[in-house]
Amino acid sequence: MNTIQISAFDILNMETRKRAAFMNSISGFKSASLIGTIDKNNKTNLAIFSSVIHLGSNPALVGFINRPDTIDRHTFENILETNCFTINHINKSIYKQGHQTSARYPKDISEFDATGLTPEFQNSFKAPFVKESNIKYGLEFIEKHDLKINGTILVIGKVVEVFLPESCLLSDGAIDIEMAETIAISGLDSYHTTNKIARLSYAKTDKIPIEINP
Amino acid sequence: MNTIQISAFDILNMETRKRAAFMNSISGFKSASLIGTIDKNNKTNLAIFSSVIHLGSNPALVGFINRPDTIDRHTFENILETNCFTINHINKSIYKQGHQTSARYPKDISEFDATGLTPEFQNSFKAPFVKESNIKYGLEFIEKHDLKINGTILVIGKVVEVFLPESCLLSDGAIDIEMAETIAISGLDSYHTTNKIARLSYAKTDKIPIEINP
Repeated sequence: MNTIQISAFDILNMETRKRAAFMNSISGFKSASLIGTIDKNNKTNLAIFSSVIHLGSNPALVGFINRPDTIDRHTFENILETNCFTINHINKSIYKQGHQTSARYPKDISEFDATGLTPEFQNSFKAPFVKESNIKYGLEFIEKHDLKINGTILVIGKVVEVFLPESCLLSDGAIDIEMAETIAISGLDSYHTTNKIARLSYAKTDKIPIEINP
Repeated sequence: MNTIQISAFDILNMETRKRAAFMNSISGFKSASLIGTIDKNNKTNLAIFSSVIHLGSNPALVGFINRPDTIDRHTFENILETNCFTINHINKSIYKQGHQTSARYPKDISEFDATGLTPEFQNSFKAPFVKESNIKYGLEFIEKHDLKINGTILVIGKVVEVFLPESCLLSDGAIDIEMAETIAISGLDSYHTTNKIARLSYAKTDKIPIEINP
């Protein structure tokens, strides 16, 4: 493959939309999630995010990046109002509806209604889950970090409850998210199913990693 | 699929390694990257990270999460010393070597030497790239955010130069990272190739998204 070099200057001089497509591609494959929220008047909201990221296991923390200029500032406003949100994995059956949640619907229209996805309420948890999602979890808002360099916000939540298919929970605690039909995103708008190559054993300096199948 | 519920209490009571496997799975698919660094004595280091994340397009920012208790604190030490690092996409041909970089090698052993991956120096950029990687970019260290809740650090870099296969750069600025053989990670140790379902058009409230092929 013939390699080309793109400099910081080239990136700076790209047309805005082209630069966004380029920069959103170089970080690699991303998680595909729908974040469900509700405001103090019980109006639901649903928005696609590709920036959900593992932050820690104990305490059980997950974060996502919220842009202040985002098409979906309703998500963060609702989280500040009700202190909770849900993260719902996108699967192949709902990726078009998931993508459509990124349209700029006004605040009084719920993306659940607009896209046909079904809000699901679990126990006493206030924020809506997505019924059609196979792996989903509810979080309590813990803290935010303002990234002053570009005005984005890292929003951090603590996992309160997780729902997943029993068959996808493996004996060693890992979840087979491919079996649960979770998909991946690349760039701004590209959706991908996956094929497992292998799981590898815990790396040690004196051993070559071997395939494991818990 | 029969759904089960895992509570915050259940997560807290999991054995440490099991909890790590579980929590690393629920965020969805993750980027698969090798971060290359060098210290002030020109000793190279290479480490696998699944937490690389897009933070902004203008300025061109990419971040990753560094744990203070991580097996690879050398990466962050080197970044503080020399102010630069490289991010190199992992492909199917090098995922075993990539995984092996997570073994706890002492500071005087370079993971390049230990795993057989080849350091590559580009122009005047100080940190080493990975020759076997198809998409790779050099970054200048910009800032860090300490997440006090669990001691992790969000490390932010500005993209200085990008190397990629010419055939993978699409007309609209997106990179076909699947064509470049970039893979995805799930959990702590599961590696996946991808199959593109589709790219979808920019979402509008009055239109159904259609497939695009720039």
